[in-house]
Amino acid sequence: MNQNLLWIEQLKFNNNGLIPAIAQDFQDGSILMMAWMNRESIHRTLETTEAHYWSRSRGELWHKGATSGHIQKVKELLYDCDRDTILLKIEQVGDIACHTGVRSCFFNSVPMNSLVLH
Amino acid sequence: MNQNLLWIEQLKFNNNGLIPAIAQDFQDGSILMMAWMNRESIHRTLETTEAHYWSRSRGELWHKGATSGHIQKVKELLYDCDRDTILLKIEQVGDIACHTGVRSCFFNSVPMNSLVLH
Repeated sequence: MNQNLLWIEQLKFNNNGLIPAIAQDFQDGSILMMAWMNRESIHRTLETTEAHYWSRSRGELWHKGATSGHIQKVKELLYDCDRDTILLKIEQVGDIACHTGVRSCFFNSVPMNSLVLH
Repeated sequence: MNQNLLWIEQLKFNNNGLIPAIAQDFQDGSILMMAWMNRESIHRTLETTEAHYWSRSRGELWHKGATSGHIQKVKELLYDCDRDTILLKIEQVGDIACHTGVRSCFFNSVPMNSLVLH
C-alpha cells in the first residue's frame, strides 16, 4: 500500500463504512454542511482536490456540485484525535453549499435564552 | 408537549438514538470537536446551557468538562436543513476541548498538495 494512504485505513468507519465529514469555509470558518464519506470518496477527494461524499439517500458516490456547479475545492483535510470524524477546509464555489440554495445548511437556530423548559 | 421542544422530535436520530453534534468556538469559528447527542443530552444542554453529549464509549450521559473543568458554555444551538446534525456555538472554558489536552480535536492534517496517489 502507498504509505501516504495508511492514515485512511486507520480511520474508524461506522458499520456502513462511513465517516462523518464537516465542510468548513477555509477563509471565514463558517460551517457549511456535514455529510458522509467512505473510502472511495476520500480517495476521489484526494485525487481531484474536490469534495466527494457518499450519498446515503441515493446510495452512490456524490461529487458535490457535479450538477449544480457548486463544487468544493478542498484546501486542507484533517481528522480528529480518535479518527472518527473528518474536517474539510474548503473553498465553496458559488458560495452555496446547501441544496436549499443558501450558503450553509445550518440556518435553523434555537436561541438558548428563549426557551421555556418547564 | 412543550411547543418549544417540538423541533427536537423532528430531528433525525440514528438507529442508536444519536445525532452528531459539532462544537465550534463562537468567537473565532474554530471547530473544536465532534461528538454525539441523544434526546436527554439535548434537554440537559438546554436546561443548563452547558454542552452535554452521549458518550458512546462509556454508554452514559456526558457533561463535557464535569471532571476536567473544561465545560462548554453554549451560546447558540443550530441544526441543519435535513435535521440530522447539530451545531453548538460555544465558549470553551480553559480553551481546551480535546481529551489530549489541546484546543481542538482536529490536529491531524493531511496536506492536499503533498499526496502521491499513484
